[in-house]
Amino acid sequence: MNCIFCDIIKNEDHDGMIYSDPEVVSFLDIRPLNLGHTLVVPVEHHTDFREMPPESMQHFFAKVQQIALAVEKATGADGFNIICNTGEAASQTIFHLHYHIIPRFRGDNVFRRLEFKQYNSETEMRSFAEKIKKHL
Amino acid sequence: MNCIFCDIIKNEDHDGMIYSDPEVVSFLDIRPLNLGHTLVVPVEHHTDFREMPPESMQHFFAKVQQIALAVEKATGADGFNIICNTGEAASQTIFHLHYHIIPRFRGDNVFRRLEFKQYNSETEMRSFAEKIKKHL
Repeated sequence: MNCIFCDIIKNEDHDGMIYSDPEVVSFLDIRPLNLGHTLVVPVEHHTDFREMPPESMQHFFAKVQQIALAVEKATGADGFNIICNTGEAASQTIFHLHYHIIPRFRGDNVFRRLEFKQYNSETEMRSFAEKIKKHL
Repeated sequence: MNCIFCDIIKNEDHDGMIYSDPEVVSFLDIRPLNLGHTLVVPVEHHTDFREMPPESMQHFFAKVQQIALAVEKATGADGFNIICNTGEAASQTIFHLHYHIIPRFRGDNVFRRLEFKQYNSETEMRSFAEKIKKHL
């Protein structure tokens, strides 16, 4: 199976390599929304977040937090977004699970003019919540 | 301290309530990017992801995953985004840590025309990675 992230992990061959341990690797996104935009990637190949083994989450997200704080300090950012796109419809482009850390600066306007939807009634909202609960 | 999420958690008073246990609560976002847009919130008050105790992450993110899969099935979505905005500059508006689950549908165009930045050289990319490593 060809996977560009598995190749990077195997060879640790990336100009933007930031961190690696036996479970987690982190490197800069080569297509950054802001400079310093960083990816955190499990070493084990999982297509996306749907497949992540829950027992691996403690270490993985502790690293996401630690690296996010380092990105924020290093870039002098005012905040950051943590994002995981799951599925092509959600803008996932590399099908090896990865979390994005995007350093943000006041007024940088990275995500512009988001349009919110609306529930037409409390009843509609309740019916969405009920449908989701049934799948838990 | 007034916190709208602490109030919701204390009273479980929300038309879009989906899940609660002693550590985690989940309910619909009343300002959805798509209908079914769901929040997962730790019961304990932390301002944002910077403050999340690493030892609480296993249970929290296992719930994020489980609820995301339920949201996807219930809404018939093609994928989803997991998002955590950290700091006002990153569009955080409620200062009680929460993760967003946004169900996504092919072509729904929720995040439009993102503009990517660019590293001017491999040297510039390496210097960003070095700066971040120093803060780890």
